[in-house]
Amino acid sequence: MSAQQTRVALARFPDGVPTVDDFELTTGPTPALAPGHLLVRNRYLSLDPFLRGVISGRQIYATRVEPGDTMPGNTVAEIIESGAPGFEPGDHVVCDGGWQQVALVPAATARKVPSDADLLGLRVGILGMPGLTAYAGLTRLGEPRPGDTVVVSAASGPVGSMVGQIARLHGCRAVGIAGSEEKCRWVVEQAGFDACINYKTENLAEALGTQCPDGIDVYFDNVGADTLAAVLTRLALGARIVLCGLITQYNTSTPPPGPNLGPVIGARATMRGLVVYDHYDLWDHFATVAAPWVRDGRIQYRETRNDGLAAAPEAFCRLMRGENFGKELVVIEDGA
Amino acid sequence: MSAQQTRVALARFPDGVPTVDDFELTTGPTPALAPGHLLVRNRYLSLDPFLRGVISGRQIYATRVEPGDTMPGNTVAEIIESGAPGFEPGDHVVCDGGWQQVALVPAATARKVPSDADLLGLRVGILGMPGLTAYAGLTRLGEPRPGDTVVVSAASGPVGSMVGQIARLHGCRAVGIAGSEEKCRWVVEQAGFDACINYKTENLAEALGTQCPDGIDVYFDNVGADTLAAVLTRLALGARIVLCGLITQYNTSTPPPGPNLGPVIGARATMRGLVVYDHYDLWDHFATVAAPWVRDGRIQYRETRNDGLAAAPEAFCRLMRGENFGKELVVIEDGA
Repeated sequence: MSAQQTRVALARFPDGVPTVDDFELTTGPTPALAPGHLLVRNRYLSLDPFLRGVISGRQIYATRVEPGDTMPGNTVAEIIESGAPGFEPGDHVVCDGGWQQVALVPAATARKVPSDADLLGLRVGILGMPGLTAYAGLTRLGEPRPGDTVVVSAASGPVGSMVGQIARLHGCRAVGIAGSEEKCRWVVEQAGFDACINYKTENLAEALGTQCPDGIDVYFDNVGADTLAAVLTRLALGARIVLCGLITQYNTSTPPPGPNLGPVIGARATMRGLVVYDHYDLWDHFATVAAPWVRDGRIQYRETRNDGLAAAPEAFCRLMRGENFGKELVVIEDGA
Repeated sequence: MSAQQTRVALARFPDGVPTVDDFELTTGPTPALAPGHLLVRNRYLSLDPFLRGVISGRQIYATRVEPGDTMPGNTVAEIIESGAPGFEPGDHVVCDGGWQQVALVPAATARKVPSDADLLGLRVGILGMPGLTAYAGLTRLGEPRPGDTVVVSAASGPVGSMVGQIARLHGCRAVGIAGSEEKCRWVVEQAGFDACINYKTENLAEALGTQCPDGIDVYFDNVGADTLAAVLTRLALGARIVLCGLITQYNTSTPPPGPNLGPVIGARATMRGLVVYDHYDLWDHFATVAAPWVRDGRIQYRETRNDGLAAAPEAFCRLMRGENFGKELVVIEDGA
């Protein structure tokens, strides 16, 4: 372990959609172990839309990042030295390891994950927080019943693709919404959704009417805005709407108006706000249930692997521009 | 019974806020009994905000009214002749008797109410649909717990005043929102709310912060728009929002945008659409529970009585302009 390590810092608060100039590839001191903490080597870094809020210069999440700070981010990491009982060198954890090679993290915020090499990168993807978001949000807040029509936006992403596939495993029809023909094709042909609507080329409200002739029973919303407004016009009576993300407004500095809520009344619908941290009690259960689904092919996923920390800023900006396809993962250090 | 009777017809679809010229006081034939129907003499006519949707020229409710048609409306009526078992002449019913003296109504849509003269007019008010709206919406969808802070808009109206008073009977703090000092004074001094905010003279979000220091646990929304947006900024974790009416958009022809839903996610809140027709199973229970509350003074109400059908158009327009205070009731035929 050297005294200096590679890291990516926030260079300035982004104005609107982030660009690579908002980040800086630099070096920083390698931390030393402290009591109650873990010294970890980051292996895989997850790029998630919620990071946009963290670097907005506003207090949205508990963490707020200032220019010069190392970018935060969830990682799959291997423990180098442990200062806490129950964690041993060589164990793997998911933690907020940040955009750097080596991190010191409070043991209380790290979560041990199985060391299976084939699934390791997925522990920050469909077997990690995004997967848990889909699982907890759909099953606890969406309350899907067999035969229900479940609609999900950002359907080729890690959360959306899991929502639709888990819905099908519950006996529901799954209809996705995505932003390109290629994504829609993957969602139907690989992920096995019943249909997928390209919101960029189709009239979304009309297409939803065609694909959901009995109305929408569950909508898992990852985007907000016009997509949510279109879905509200097609709700079935007693519909459940899970509000998970408002990605369309992550890059705006003032909150835009939302959809008219008249249809929520007419449909006697229920809208619920989802924050995945409330559902971490399901983490182990979900990982146990879902790992076999991945191994036997019942769950498909799409990810883009980016090599090395230097690739992280451009990969994150691509995600923020909506040009990603599937999970954006940065491989910081491959192999065992 | 004469061959002709007085009635008020819709003269034209209102453009924006209705004016008296949108209505016409005229005469029409007195109906005759038909099988399965009741011939009734209307005693009290309820003026309700939802009527604006019915006369919009759009299909919002099951009934759509065309120019020339008698205005619909809930009435307390006395049965003159009955064509259905279980209903006798002299019984009182609540029905869609309309803005006329005598009506023929399907027995299946009429609901018998006690004939107690002192409470008769309230059967279309706080002991009728508006009261049931408050009771069912608050208890079933709002799920109030002792100690909760319950906020309600249009707090001096029949629905809002009941919501706050029933909340207090459930051990909650009740905070009202109303549009004049006079209304706010009544809400606190007569209806016994803990506080009432005049949204026309105060900064609503700030005042809610002051009056609800631990956040808002239940919001019963009768108005939508800016009021709803302000409330969303003050939600307690796990808040429940009952969407009951969007009175601010009843007079617009295109649905305006709603509030930004970001705070709903942050608060892990639940929003539910309320349509009172779903809760008619509670009608008798509610009337039984609430009549003693009125008689012993635990429930206060405010109403404006208007004499005769000719007064109905101006009373309805006043309601639509937000210039009413309490329930707008038209006394079509007083006394027994």
